[in-house]
Amino acid sequence: MGEKHLTKIYDYELVYNYILELIQNKLDEHSKIPSENTLCQKFSLSRLTVRQGINKLKSEGYLYSRRGSGNFVNPKKIVYTISSDTTFTNEILKLKKKPSMKFLEIKTIKADDEMAKKLNIKIAQEILYVKNMRFVDNVPFLYAEYYINKSLLKDVDKEIENITSISKMYKEVYNLLPIRSGSEIDITSTNYLSKQIFKIQNDLPIIKIGTKTRDKKSKQTIDYCYSYFRSDMVKIVVDYKDKLND
Amino acid sequence: MGEKHLTKIYDYELVYNYILELIQNKLDEHSKIPSENTLCQKFSLSRLTVRQGINKLKSEGYLYSRRGSGNFVNPKKIVYTISSDTTFTNEILKLKKKPSMKFLEIKTIKADDEMAKKLNIKIAQEILYVKNMRFVDNVPFLYAEYYINKSLLKDVDKEIENITSISKMYKEVYNLLPIRSGSEIDITSTNYLSKQIFKIQNDLPIIKIGTKTRDKKSKQTIDYCYSYFRSDMVKIVVDYKDKLND
Repeated sequence: MGEKHLTKIYDYELVYNYILELIQNKLDEHSKIPSENTLCQKFSLSRLTVRQGINKLKSEGYLYSRRGSGNFVNPKKIVYTISSDTTFTNEILKLKKKPSMKFLEIKTIKADDEMAKKLNIKIAQEILYVKNMRFVDNVPFLYAEYYINKSLLKDVDKEIENITSISKMYKEVYNLLPIRSGSEIDITSTNYLSKQIFKIQNDLPIIKIGTKTRDKKSKQTIDYCYSYFRSDMVKIVVDYKDKLND
Repeated sequence: MGEKHLTKIYDYELVYNYILELIQNKLDEHSKIPSENTLCQKFSLSRLTVRQGINKLKSEGYLYSRRGSGNFVNPKKIVYTISSDTTFTNEILKLKKKPSMKFLEIKTIKADDEMAKKLNIKIAQEILYVKNMRFVDNVPFLYAEYYINKSLLKDVDKEIENITSISKMYKEVYNLLPIRSGSEIDITSTNYLSKQIFKIQNDLPIIKIGTKTRDKKSKQTIDYCYSYFRSDMVKIVVDYKDKLND
């Protein structure tokens, strides 16, 4: 902040912009980009500077490298639609990819101030805290923390052990009609999450989406959930479900 | 992982919860939090564990650090709601802040393949390309690139020079009912944008939202717009406008 009217473009940004343009308009997934040598000559820049531009594209998920053979274009991001009623499983199946899920932690905790407000329950009332990871074609894709309103779901701590989808459990075991009522989208940095959860080494922005799920019939809040997506793997599409949509 | 019914609170969570409570209830923006040493002593924990708690708060955007001088409380983010019919001006006025807008560029271009598809017009048909910056209390907040369907808006290149809000122009000058039909949310890195547009020096994830605006009456596409937000200043709230919402 503070510096006004900076107009300098750094040398490595020339390389960055040039390759980004290639990726967006000319190169297919898994195509090889021009070699470092070629780029050095094209822009009359040092190898260090060229590498800086390439590394930025790698850190943003546009490129990956294979040792000894150069840099390649990463597959396009997964387009993940959120609306009042989409579910992970359906969204991934639509893409003709394989969804799967693994619980990382399930425990009963007491609602703090904030969570009591979000779930519309009393402070210190028992809630079920659930962490899980969801995979797309076996690659870790979506990490989530659920705060589940136990009072609506009898014996949920036992039921949850036998399921493969939480929203399916709401529908099939508890006969609820889960519907999202608004999402909060935030970007967090990643050190903690990327390293601990996604097992990636570099810094990478993480998209954090907080969503309240309610039962369409009783209008009670079923859960509040924080979902975390790797920003290099996903593009979020919001469907407002307006009648105007085609 | 995989242990079920874990009730353990990890040591670092003690630190995390303690500081989060301070941030939410006691400390002001830009206040310094207790030092690592103080926290080590208070909880009888190792520096590594204390740092784990602090890093989680940093990764969630609650704290920032200044080298050599410790960790500080980040200002609260602006909550910006998107739905099928919110506008910048209204959203910012709701927060009791002052919205303003400045055009950076206005020019007529020919639609390329992608934009023709998005606007549902012919390739090479003329569109108005508009760049503007919107400010909240005079701080650059939202940078946008509009691709406007000129065929719906007679003499828009002249009209636009006298306005303070594009959506207002659609309504008041052209008697249209602009409504959003879906948004695409993506995270881009920042070098180019942050330096050129937001005049910030460090790397910072930028939230990029692509939105199509249509006329509710004729159902024709009025514009396609890319909006860019600084991720450290904003939290995006999606309003699905479901009847269930309270």
